[in-house]
Amino acid sequence: MTTRRPRGPYAKSTARRRQILDAALALYAEAGTRGVSVREIAQRVGMTDAGVLHHFGSREALLTAVLEARDRADAEAYGDVREDPGAALQVIAHNAGTPGLVKLFLDVAAAAAEPGHPAHGYFAERYERYRDGTAAFLKSSAEAPPVPTARATPVDAAWAARMLLAAIDGLQLQWLLNPDIDMAADLAALHRVLATALADRSDDG
Amino acid sequence: MTTRRPRGPYAKSTARRRQILDAALALYAEAGTRGVSVREIAQRVGMTDAGVLHHFGSREALLTAVLEARDRADAEAYGDVREDPGAALQVIAHNAGTPGLVKLFLDVAAAAAEPGHPAHGYFAERYERYRDGTAAFLKSSAEAPPVPTARATPVDAAWAARMLLAAIDGLQLQWLLNPDIDMAADLAALHRVLATALADRSDDG
Repeated sequence: MTTRRPRGPYAKSTARRRQILDAALALYAEAGTRGVSVREIAQRVGMTDAGVLHHFGSREALLTAVLEARDRADAEAYGDVREDPGAALQVIAHNAGTPGLVKLFLDVAAAAAEPGHPAHGYFAERYERYRDGTAAFLKSSAEAPPVPTARATPVDAAWAARMLLAAIDGLQLQWLLNPDIDMAADLAALHRVLATALADRSDDG
Repeated sequence: MTTRRPRGPYAKSTARRRQILDAALALYAEAGTRGVSVREIAQRVGMTDAGVLHHFGSREALLTAVLEARDRADAEAYGDVREDPGAALQVIAHNAGTPGLVKLFLDVAAAAAEPGHPAHGYFAERYERYRDGTAAFLKSSAEAPPVPTARATPVDAAWAARMLLAAIDGLQLQWLLNPDIDMAADLAALHRVLATALADRSDDG
């Protein structure tokens, strides 16, 4: 893929957007679970609130662009999470250092269920793409199942409960964007797989 | 447990709150993924916006009360989801008919990560309670793993991908409220269990 280097006003605008997004990512990384205001982002880059929003169109569009910028930064730092499971686990471990961005992601993901939301396309496309990549990755994992490592939580009832509750909540995000998903049937299968894993594990002991 | 029937102004206020919450639940059920405004709730019960908010203290506290009311309505209709797995699957299937409430739940869950949010206690306590109940339930499932039913999605790579992505997103909600959770280690274990389930399944075929 060749990229053309834009010149003139467009180049300036692109540079400005990047500067705003870099400042926003830095602020979210510093903010803990506290939110970050458009005002703080504007102050960091020496612009007015209206000036910042002008470059994106709306607050929602700015926040969507922040999430896209985070995806790009993660891909540069850790590689393509869809192709490399190690990269995905590194990104997840890295997320634990930036709760402000985790919260932003979940905030916007819930809001984006509305078709008119600027992030609707981003999330719909993201899940579609990630599901395909993750399915291919899991298929290859099934051919050579990963061995237990010190880095993995032991398979016990407390862990299985965290996973089932997490899947219940997270599947709702996917379903809001894709109502064809049969949540109850998906989760019934997960319940069975988790129960079987727990049973296999107690056979060992 | 005995319940005292309150009298006088307090009784009136309790009845008013219940009336507001019933109206809000009905409106969310009708709204699809579109949001519901305080104004719409107020109009439905013939009050002003300020009058409605007065009964709860803030918009956030009102929305938290709506989620608590949904939990109570679900428990009355389907039983205690922590003790009866069938109830949990019925609630999830029922959720699929009320996307507005699903979206409200996820919206508020993400916002409630901030310790000052009126729903912070609700979510922190809810996850703690549900994790304990779900762990006990999964432990008993492990003693007699559920047999495959027509109601469960087949265990294949597409299903496993939905589950892994759902767990990644949903675990972030739990972690925002309980940073002791090691997300990467939990998900590494889930990856292994899903890959093993896929491998076992292809042995069958």
